[in-house]
Amino acid sequence: MILALAGGVGGAKLAAGLSAVLPPEQLAIVVNTGDDFEHLGLRISPDIDTVTYTLAGIANRELGWGIAGESWAFMDQLAKLGGESWFRLGDRDLATHVERTRRLAAGESLTTITAALAGAHGIAHRIVPMADDPAPTIVHSDEGALAFQDYFVRRQCAPKLTGLALAPHVRPSTAFAALIDDPALEGVIVCPSNPYLSIDPILALDGVRERLKARGVPIIAVSPIIAGKAVKGPAAKIMAELGVPVSSAGIADHYRGWIDGLVIDESDRAAVDEIRDMRLLVTPTLMRDDADRHALAEAVIGWVQQWHLAGANPISAPKA
Amino acid sequence: MILALAGGVGGAKLAAGLSAVLPPEQLAIVVNTGDDFEHLGLRISPDIDTVTYTLAGIANRELGWGIAGESWAFMDQLAKLGGESWFRLGDRDLATHVERTRRLAAGESLTTITAALAGAHGIAHRIVPMADDPAPTIVHSDEGALAFQDYFVRRQCAPKLTGLALAPHVRPSTAFAALIDDPALEGVIVCPSNPYLSIDPILALDGVRERLKARGVPIIAVSPIIAGKAVKGPAAKIMAELGVPVSSAGIADHYRGWIDGLVIDESDRAAVDEIRDMRLLVTPTLMRDDADRHALAEAVIGWVQQWHLAGANPISAPKA
Repeated sequence: MILALAGGVGGAKLAAGLSAVLPPEQLAIVVNTGDDFEHLGLRISPDIDTVTYTLAGIANRELGWGIAGESWAFMDQLAKLGGESWFRLGDRDLATHVERTRRLAAGESLTTITAALAGAHGIAHRIVPMADDPAPTIVHSDEGALAFQDYFVRRQCAPKLTGLALAPHVRPSTAFAALIDDPALEGVIVCPSNPYLSIDPILALDGVRERLKARGVPIIAVSPIIAGKAVKGPAAKIMAELGVPVSSAGIADHYRGWIDGLVIDESDRAAVDEIRDMRLLVTPTLMRDDADRHALAEAVIGWVQQWHLAGANPISAPKA
Repeated sequence: MILALAGGVGGAKLAAGLSAVLPPEQLAIVVNTGDDFEHLGLRISPDIDTVTYTLAGIANRELGWGIAGESWAFMDQLAKLGGESWFRLGDRDLATHVERTRRLAAGESLTTITAALAGAHGIAHRIVPMADDPAPTIVHSDEGALAFQDYFVRRQCAPKLTGLALAPHVRPSTAFAALIDDPALEGVIVCPSNPYLSIDPILALDGVRERLKARGVPIIAVSPIIAGKAVKGPAAKIMAELGVPVSSAGIADHYRGWIDGLVIDESDRAAVDEIRDMRLLVTPTLMRDDADRHALAEAVIGWVQQWHLAGANPISAPKA
């Protein structure tokens, strides 16, 4: 069983690739909820929705969020009524938030609701929130402390990030905790999501980083940086603001000591000389279409399998 | 200043006619909130919305509720997700409920919110909820006690009504109470709304019936029954089930002792011989279009003015 850790668009793409390659019982996708917030009285879980919509094949590829072919009658009317319209909710997307909010108010857990909504979309693979309790990420910036969506959507990541405050003392969801302890666990794949905004909140949950490491299975990250740029989102901007090299080497620095291997793009082949203390897989990582997603998923899964075939011995050399 | 009491479609039509004829400072429309309920975590005020949408000129005349030219992407998606879809909420209409719910949660009163939403629709006339506190009407039927919308929408008024339980000990909203005491009050117009479901809940509020009567201004009702039928809604069915004559005479019986005059349709002219203890205005009351609404509004306002011109003397005779 493979445990994938995912956040937004890039993570969702690889998660979709993994779900196309692995049967449901061999994959669980644990999703960041540090971006979750209450808006218009609704509980919104952007990363869970991005993963769900992507696996369901209905994600809006143009926008990078929401549902393909979406309509905006609700939002347009809300703006006319003087309501808040900076966080745009499509008419179909809204059904997700209304139904989630109603079920939470009825006492269901986010885990149960996420599974039910995924099931309604015909998704057989497990999509698991990292936590059932709120774990809001706070962005510290040159404009002060900002709630995550205030930074990410309202301010379009314009403020200069100076640091992140991840919610302390939050337990992983029961389902996530059970996956960490699952005897069938064969590997952890850190999807090419933003390490700071999407992955660190998962690893910051009580005991998660240590318990995953203690399992002794290969932990492999896929670099979200290709040729010095993030495919989507503010990862590159944030790394630059934090004084971190905007490169696969910078990603290696970030995860060093926790991951066992890093997957980097072919265009970053030169980084092999830079990252000498970590196993590397050099392969195309840009996911433009479904074929790219499947190929990357197969490459990463193949690497995990190779790891197990090698037993306790290290894999001979980086594929370079 | 005219105080109009209104409920659903028929009441909203006359309210719109009155608002076309009277300037904003000379009209206040107090609306039933006995139908209000929580659904999908949203606070829904059907009669307030019907009056607001009608005055804004955007009411859906085909459906009799909601907004003209509405789309249903939200509702269709919610049904796909397994959510409750028996109470249909259009995409634009939904903005009203989300914004109302958000503002109520933020501590604003239903009165304030209703005024703000009416203002956003460009309505200058006052639309005032009968109460800020919940005042849910319970329908007693041959299938037991039903929450109002369970009876009205989910069961499409199919159960046989045996009685109504109006919320006890609810105060009128501060704004309604102020209107009752307003020295400028010249008359009360009971719109052709369902007497049982729309008007009685208003009159059942603490002290309302007595305080309005004590003002000594003419109280005039417009019969919602024309030629033995309700123009819209279950008024005729309910009257039959309660053993009341389905006629203007039945409406006169219902309001007797409280109203000073009843407006009946020309087709019910024969009722003049039946209703001998009450002043009557016989005039066309069917409102098919805006011209009908204006004509009825002018007829009713004219009758109120005539009352005042007549001073303490009764108006000579029913217009028959």
